[in-house]
Amino acid sequence: MQVVLNYLKRNQARFVAELCDYLRFPSVSAQPQHKKDLHACAGWLVDHCRKIGLEARLCPTAGHPIVVAKTPRSNGPRKPRFMVYGHYDVQPPEPLDLWKSPPFAPRIVGRSIYARGSTDNKGQNFAHLKAVEAYFKTGTPLPCDLTFVIEGEEEVGSANLAKFLKTRRAELQCDAVVVSDTGMPSPKHPALTYSLRGIIAFEITVFGPSRDLHSGGFGGAVENPAMALARLLAQLRDASGRVTIPGFYNDIPPLSAYERKQFARLPIKDRDLQKLLGVKKLFGERGFTPTEQRSARPTFEINGLTSGYQGQGSKTIVPAWARAKITCRLVPNQRPSEIRKLVCRHIEKICPPTVRLKIEAGHGAEAYLMSPTSASARAALRALEAAFGCPPVVMREGGSIPIVNDFKKILGADSLLLGLGLPDDNAHSPNEKFNLDCFAKGQAMSAHLWQELSRPRV
Amino acid sequence: MQVVLNYLKRNQARFVAELCDYLRFPSVSAQPQHKKDLHACAGWLVDHCRKIGLEARLCPTAGHPIVVAKTPRSNGPRKPRFMVYGHYDVQPPEPLDLWKSPPFAPRIVGRSIYARGSTDNKGQNFAHLKAVEAYFKTGTPLPCDLTFVIEGEEEVGSANLAKFLKTRRAELQCDAVVVSDTGMPSPKHPALTYSLRGIIAFEITVFGPSRDLHSGGFGGAVENPAMALARLLAQLRDASGRVTIPGFYNDIPPLSAYERKQFARLPIKDRDLQKLLGVKKLFGERGFTPTEQRSARPTFEINGLTSGYQGQGSKTIVPAWARAKITCRLVPNQRPSEIRKLVCRHIEKICPPTVRLKIEAGHGAEAYLMSPTSASARAALRALEAAFGCPPVVMREGGSIPIVNDFKKILGADSLLLGLGLPDDNAHSPNEKFNLDCFAKGQAMSAHLWQELSRPRV
Repeated sequence: MQVVLNYLKRNQARFVAELCDYLRFPSVSAQPQHKKDLHACAGWLVDHCRKIGLEARLCPTAGHPIVVAKTPRSNGPRKPRFMVYGHYDVQPPEPLDLWKSPPFAPRIVGRSIYARGSTDNKGQNFAHLKAVEAYFKTGTPLPCDLTFVIEGEEEVGSANLAKFLKTRRAELQCDAVVVSDTGMPSPKHPALTYSLRGIIAFEITVFGPSRDLHSGGFGGAVENPAMALARLLAQLRDASGRVTIPGFYNDIPPLSAYERKQFARLPIKDRDLQKLLGVKKLFGERGFTPTEQRSARPTFEINGLTSGYQGQGSKTIVPAWARAKITCRLVPNQRPSEIRKLVCRHIEKICPPTVRLKIEAGHGAEAYLMSPTSASARAALRALEAAFGCPPVVMREGGSIPIVNDFKKILGADSLLLGLGLPDDNAHSPNEKFNLDCFAKGQAMSAHLWQELSRPRV
Repeated sequence: MQVVLNYLKRNQARFVAELCDYLRFPSVSAQPQHKKDLHACAGWLVDHCRKIGLEARLCPTAGHPIVVAKTPRSNGPRKPRFMVYGHYDVQPPEPLDLWKSPPFAPRIVGRSIYARGSTDNKGQNFAHLKAVEAYFKTGTPLPCDLTFVIEGEEEVGSANLAKFLKTRRAELQCDAVVVSDTGMPSPKHPALTYSLRGIIAFEITVFGPSRDLHSGGFGGAVENPAMALARLLAQLRDASGRVTIPGFYNDIPPLSAYERKQFARLPIKDRDLQKLLGVKKLFGERGFTPTEQRSARPTFEINGLTSGYQGQGSKTIVPAWARAKITCRLVPNQRPSEIRKLVCRHIEKICPPTVRLKIEAGHGAEAYLMSPTSASARAALRALEAAFGCPPVVMREGGSIPIVNDFKKILGADSLLLGLGLPDDNAHSPNEKFNLDCFAKGQAMSAHLWQELSRPRV
């Protein structure tokens, strides 16, 4: 093992330069004009995997292609088999004027590398590739077989991945999936995430008059769809953030004493969180700590609002329509299809008859939960401790990685969520960054992990 | 008088040809590239006034010039003196692809002339000029002195007109101002508009976190500014459109029985209005008819909403800020500065402490009201009836013409709003038109008006 760790240490500078190449692709999956960039990025990744010594290929899908890369299979006795999942697509970089340097021109400041996709998720999946490279280039035998599955549609809902898993179920069968796409509370608190929130996305459009109307000539005798939308939205949440849609909380079990104790171990203070977010005051559902609110409780969140005139100055109109983009985060036991129905039914019920309502469903995913005390969880915690040199924490995370439920359902495998992101990494925000120590320690964690996971269980 | 009316009748064909010349100037005041066209149009108008027999000149301003044209002053006893106000500038014609013929190539179909500026306002001010021509060319003595003030910046806020009025207060002093820049409900309902709504414009911005946040990582523990804005807005109006800001209605006198009777005489049916607007159902403050709601009652109208992600698909963020563009239409006795204060104070009061609020003031204007039963109003109604051959209506209009308050304040004169536009004239829209019967009857109305207004009052 030491030779692997030494190789990693010796090659950090090159690894960072390679990561910069990876980050230069504007692989924004949500924006059709970047289709070619996604293909180019996937092609680069396949080449890189082959250079390392993996057997890599590009698998086309109805959307963006999936990169599959495997360790060469030996003829000996069957080894444990693990899958590493990641994604090469990134969030849209907008608003561009808030970036201190261009989002696809990586910039290194101190121990941080700034670029869209640096922490989410290119830097994290690249750390695992570098660990495998270290095994291969030092001639160290891997105690397991590995398959990397790095997709290009995670940020738009992984629409084609489930079909891919089903089609190749036999080939992809494994003992566990390893995913580094979550976070850790601080560089001194490496973490295993054992639960994720689910999600439903949808758009609400409220239509009023057949065209924008002169607000002088007609205002007062016609419903303003922007106001109708505001009134609709305002009825869906109370002042503390608790969702007021009947039945929304019905299936949620209470948090156990064990879990609340683990939450309390996490190092983040309310004051620090408030400072980090730049808000005047924290906010959230009564009876829960901020950590619980943002990882173990569901939400109703407006992601965007659009209506009428948005340019400079004023335009005196009653707009023809108004739209809200919404996502609800869900927690274990809330079924997305069921919650979607509850939400739609309630909105339809309270929508006034003076406007026409259209609700368009977007992506959806169940929440995820695995036991934080299982054998594989304990193996992962040992790898974290060895690499980071301090005791790890177990935690829930508020984000969603919809595909982990498919790994469980289709491949029968738990997902070990061993995230390398820090709270101030600005994932999905301008000036996204990735910490280069997390990058290096993540590689070491990955190197240890295959040893720990492959030990005969006791 | 009959000789004047005969002259008008005999010369309609030529008048229409001259109006076409006037309409060919693309005098778009909002677009800097048309500066020369505005000058050319104003120059043509001065020449035309001189040809008629008026003493005309071009008065430069910081913006586009004002045309001033006067009847030659006689040495006899002081006659009543009136001002005719109009504007030779027009709205931008865009979107051009929706025009059935080029906006500055007048086209006559049946009894309509299609061109940008035809109804708003060239056709209407030209009708008044033709009436004066008829007096002069038939040697009929005018019972009053007239001053035409035809400006080039009405469509961009008349920024230089108030200063012009103040500088020439003595010269422009008059007994009433006549403005044909409003509408009539139908060709059989000539109208005197005796009231206009005022306006205040402002923008509300609600700031949350210092940047867009990942809604998975942080959602639940931080207020969503788009939701805070929706909840704020929803508290400012009730379900029927009544503004809930304390004091908003304090200074509004009730509608008199006389006024409500006049409203009820207007020919527009709820069903027709609903069809015209393309809405499922009309809407508005209880206790008032749609006509009253859109002309005699104040409003709180969202003109635009902006927050977070507005592109295709979904972006799972808690946006950093959310903004609403607002205009309130005001009615007589509501003071814009006072209402602005009430609105701001209330919004500041109900804004939650979890977000930061910014309210930016935009333009404002008082409502206008003159007595519909005054001597000059009655004189105007007699002129309308004589010209159109049917009983006129008195009405309020919901739009704002800020300059009429300056006429009152600076010159001390009421404005008689005698509009010749029809509801389907498409003012400010593609395929603007002007009805040639309204043009001809408008000339006759103007000819009668000077007789009626100049009669010794009884």
